Amino acid sequence: MDKPRAVVLLSGGVDSTTTAAIALADGFEVYAQTFEYGQRHRIEIDRARLVGQRLGVREHVVVTIDLRAFGGSALTTDMPVPKHRAVDEIGGNIPVTYVPARNTIFLSFALAWAEVLGSHDIFLGVNAMDYSGYPDCRPEYIAAYQRMADLATRAAVEGVRPLTIHTPLIRLTKAEIIRRGLDLGVDYGLTISCYDPSPAGVACGACDSCLLRLKGFRANGIADPIPYRVDVKS
Amino acid sequence: MDKPRAVVLLSGGVDSTTTAAIALADGFEVYAQTFEYGQRHRIEIDRARLVGQRLGVREHVVVTIDLRAFGGSALTTDMPVPKHRAVDEIGGNIPVTYVPARNTIFLSFALAWAEVLGSHDIFLGVNAMDYSGYPDCRPEYIAAYQRMADLATRAAVEGVRPLTIHTPLIRLTKAEIIRRGLDLGVDYGLTISCYDPSPAGVACGACDSCLLRLKGFRANGIADPIPYRVDVKS
Repeated sequence: MDKPRAVVLLSGGVDSTTTAAIALADGFEVYAQTFEYGQRHRIEIDRARLVGQRLGVREHVVVTIDLRAFGGSALTTDMPVPKHRAVDEIGGNIPVTYVPARNTIFLSFALAWAEVLGSHDIFLGVNAMDYSGYPDCRPEYIAAYQRMADLATRAAVEGVRPLTIHTPLIRLTKAEIIRRGLDLGVDYGLTISCYDPSPAGVACGACDSCLLRLKGFRANGIADPIPYRVDVKS
Repeated sequence: MDKPRAVVLLSGGVDSTTTAAIALADGFEVYAQTFEYGQRHRIEIDRARLVGQRLGVREHVVVTIDLRAFGGSALTTDMPVPKHRAVDEIGGNIPVTYVPARNTIFLSFALAWAEVLGSHDIFLGVNAMDYSGYPDCRPEYIAAYQRMADLATRAAVEGVRPLTIHTPLIRLTKAEIIRRGLDLGVDYGLTISCYDPSPAGVACGACDSCLLRLKGFRANGIADPIPYRVDVKS
């Protein structure tokens, strides 16, 4: 029997890579979707391609959209990316690295592709534990998106099986995510998480994303296999 | 006092043009958003620009996204656009001119721009009376989108005024829409509705969109001011 198809949003970071590995382990044929949206950490697109090849996705599309036209985020403008000395400085308000409506836009393209593929499953690596406090990573947002999606498409009218948005990481800590990925054989050396990497892809070691990642590896008692610009305890 | 800002999705057709006129009449400063999404009726983008200038929008962005990558619609591929002899042949199933998740994608970009502008109002010219049966034009879909949007953005977390998606045409017939626009001084000679126009922008007169438009003008007892390829009763 043919495997069911799933669209997996793949950015080349720890979370989306682990999510793609979970989708494959769950028996889905994976259609990976990556966005070139004007992010300053553009290197993640090359990493996403590498990750997709290594995992064995069926198809991989890179969708180009220009979120710089709107501005409003340190990830798409010249606004500086906040740096910290320690992971417990993260939290409180929504940081300037938040990109307005990013997950809503990404999920909408995933929904379009899923509809064309005849897929009823989208995987998204959002996480509401060790995260930057973005509103569009919360479980209540995902639930509302799924209710909307079930009214949005041909399937909604023609009574086909409704869509499921899988968020297998949403209640896991970064340490648990990495443990899960290691159990599935993920090579985290291919991934990149940094919001502000060097052109060659060396991570800064001080942005929210680097600090959360390092904390996750440390909690597992293993070294993060990627290079960092600063001397980090891993 | 400054006028409140609204993002208006403007395609250059009868419905979105009337919607923009309504937003202006309601006292909003209008930020028009148009999509170049690989549609075969690309001429609508030029018309949208003309309409925006004539109406006096504050700013107009054309967002380029490639929906052809997914296929699945007669509006973005070489699939023929269905033609009819009369308007009562329209209806029943969702036609091949449906573009998967199009309104969901468009609204997501509008949501992003609204968030950056500090706007809490989006106007969308969907209509569930004289329409092609697209699932993402129905009131229940719009309501679900709004619930999702209220959880998606910075405003959701920071307790700012929630978003309103205005759909002033949703319960109007095409005749009522045109009457409303004429009352507001809209010049429908600038608009285009055809799914399959000639390169110079002459409407086919036989697709769903042309037939619904012609019916609307006829019901008002006035001639449609745009040129048609075939001999149409208007």
